[in-house]
Amino acid sequence: MGKTKFGPQTLLFPMPAVLVGARVNETANFMTAASAPPAVTVALRPPRFTLSGIRATGTFSINVPSADMAKVVDYCGIYSGHKHDKSGLFHVDYGVLQTAPLVRECPVNLECKVLHVLDLKSHQLIVGEIVESYVRSDCITDGQPDAAKINPLVYITGSQQYCRLGEIVGRAFSIGKKD
Amino acid sequence: MGKTKFGPQTLLFPMPAVLVGARVNETANFMTAASAPPAVTVALRPPRFTLSGIRATGTFSINVPSADMAKVVDYCGIYSGHKHDKSGLFHVDYGVLQTAPLVRECPVNLECKVLHVLDLKSHQLIVGEIVESYVRSDCITDGQPDAAKINPLVYITGSQQYCRLGEIVGRAFSIGKKD
Repeated sequence: MGKTKFGPQTLLFPMPAVLVGARVNETANFMTAASAPPAVTVALRPPRFTLSGIRATGTFSINVPSADMAKVVDYCGIYSGHKHDKSGLFHVDYGVLQTAPLVRECPVNLECKVLHVLDLKSHQLIVGEIVESYVRSDCITDGQPDAAKINPLVYITGSQQYCRLGEIVGRAFSIGKKD
Repeated sequence: MGKTKFGPQTLLFPMPAVLVGARVNETANFMTAASAPPAVTVALRPPRFTLSGIRATGTFSINVPSADMAKVVDYCGIYSGHKHDKSGLFHVDYGVLQTAPLVRECPVNLECKVLHVLDLKSHQLIVGEIVESYVRSDCITDGQPDAAKINPLVYITGSQQYCRLGEIVGRAFSIGKKD
């Protein structure tokens, strides 16, 4: 598939750079939640066709599409697998877990094993352990996944739009260092 | 605080527009995971100072910074509250939960109540119910949060960089409709 394995890494693009706040000993404290654990969560509203497959196999995949895949990604969000066979939309590969379908056209794929399923009433929250990650060889620079080459599709909550990544602001774990 | 309440909504900016894949009845199926449930997950590596506060109060906040806050956000990611008092970095407001500190300088805030804490060994996964969300009044267009005005800071995994949102590609739940 022309992809390089990166082991169990949370290679999700993009990530919100949010501040998590909590009161500690009567004082407000804030930290970033950017440190990525080898786990992902996906919330699905039952009955979702995909949910039955995740429950049956105990595995699933997370596939990071590039911005030029917006139309087919949106199709997958609009139409349910109950009525529409989506298996022909992409070339499908299988990795170490053998039952988590990986989209060959997506520059990044994560293979996941179900760790927990939490009932959130309106949704089921699937917590998955990332078992392996894959990055397309032409999206790697100096041995690292290159976001500019991956060109990930970004979703905008609220206004329900897709967009691209913009220009770089600075280096993480660096620009905030005290002089 | 010059902010408008939007109720329990997952106003996280940005979101990865990923495809979730699973094998259903021997066939590969894919869906988007963009539909936002009224819950958020945060993975923290113990011992994190913030984690003790979340456990003690059962509440926390998620604050969406704008791109021009990159430096102070990075500071919060580098230095631990164990040794550095971060309460003076921002103006702090409290909302309905009274113990989740909201960063006034952030254009979007989510107030969260702890639903579950899962032990992922290297990290603790906090699952929070969003109780209230706030958007700064000058970041609202036609009654909806406006991502361009919020100008959220985006984190790039792998290369560990911050960037801005880029140009719009298309409308979700629209560009993928069958003709």
